[in-house]
Amino acid sequence: MTLTLIIGNKNYSSWSLRPWLAMRQFGVAFNEVQIALYTPESRQQIQRYSPAGKVPVLLDGTIAVWDSLAIFAYLVEQFPNLPWLPKAKAIRAIAYSISAEMHSGFQALRHHMPMNCRAKFPGKGMTAAVQTDIDRITAIWRECRQLCGEHGSMLFGQFTIADAMFAPVALRFVTYDVCLDAVCSQYVQAILALPAMQDWLKAAEVEAETLPNFNY
Amino acid sequence: MTLTLIIGNKNYSSWSLRPWLAMRQFGVAFNEVQIALYTPESRQQIQRYSPAGKVPVLLDGTIAVWDSLAIFAYLVEQFPNLPWLPKAKAIRAIAYSISAEMHSGFQALRHHMPMNCRAKFPGKGMTAAVQTDIDRITAIWRECRQLCGEHGSMLFGQFTIADAMFAPVALRFVTYDVCLDAVCSQYVQAILALPAMQDWLKAAEVEAETLPNFNY
Repeated sequence: MTLTLIIGNKNYSSWSLRPWLAMRQFGVAFNEVQIALYTPESRQQIQRYSPAGKVPVLLDGTIAVWDSLAIFAYLVEQFPNLPWLPKAKAIRAIAYSISAEMHSGFQALRHHMPMNCRAKFPGKGMTAAVQTDIDRITAIWRECRQLCGEHGSMLFGQFTIADAMFAPVALRFVTYDVCLDAVCSQYVQAILALPAMQDWLKAAEVEAETLPNFNY
Repeated sequence: MTLTLIIGNKNYSSWSLRPWLAMRQFGVAFNEVQIALYTPESRQQIQRYSPAGKVPVLLDGTIAVWDSLAIFAYLVEQFPNLPWLPKAKAIRAIAYSISAEMHSGFQALRHHMPMNCRAKFPGKGMTAAVQTDIDRITAIWRECRQLCGEHGSMLFGQFTIADAMFAPVALRFVTYDVCLDAVCSQYVQAILALPAMQDWLKAAEVEAETLPNFNY
């Protein structure tokens, strides 16, 4: 099985980060194709791989899977022996729920604090709606860490898909210097310390493109 | 296994419709708890079941699963013998992809053409961004029907989760009288004709609440 992951700019593409990070953390080999976003050619370049015209896209031979959560559903079925998710039914249900909640929600945070790995904008983008999103996200993190954190530093102890889903939020909290309690600060640091995340951030640092819409 | 599904108003809650429709179509028995949305007590009532404070929520004993896509992931694992999704790997990948695309996207359509089953607002809410969403949705429908439609009237022939994900859009297209080609019109009619959908619509018709934010 030769897998190829189509991603956007590492500095900006939060959706691309999710499957990239999880596949790297779980040791699933893949080729990487990077497409610079928001250029006149971007959409057409992406549509060569996916009719939705959005990154990420996972290619498995002639099969194209688009959207981060669909990619995870596909990977879970193709690599059933990897610990993508907690095994225990009740905990696994929480992992599914918070991953889907992240996938469809937190629009205010996404809009006002776009991912921009290499930038620092302390305090920028904060609104009441953003704070409500942050309060809910940190409540999720605290609850997961309390339930499952004793054997590791990730939401459910060891790294799972849920951590990949929330990893871009952790980066936003650093960029915009969001005030966090000790549990959430430690979780952000643990996400930053993941070897694959370090590789992603190093690559983002040296990317040539700058996108003004992302506050840079 | 006793399952309980917490839903909102049938006339308005597009997210609630998805798992309700699929569970009814697949014959999965469940109790139903309905909470009227957008009242002063709604959020608190929902939070008795789910910390996210949103419907739908699926209860399985002490386990709570929230968010429609997470509920589907849970149901697929708990009822592995039901045909929730196409079996063939390549088609299943498309089903995952379009379900996730629906889950995180089409914000313009959702915002400007909120679900309101019993209303008729021809032409209302149309904008360029809404039309772009409609164009993408109908392209998805045409592609799926062409690929798989020969043995049935649903996106992949027989009813799957993907149809449940797009069912609220079909209702919106009726409410706002969106112009559709023959393939898409037939698909909308097929969704409307599902026995479970007929039950949902009858219940929506007689609900007492009216929500001005949904154009009613």
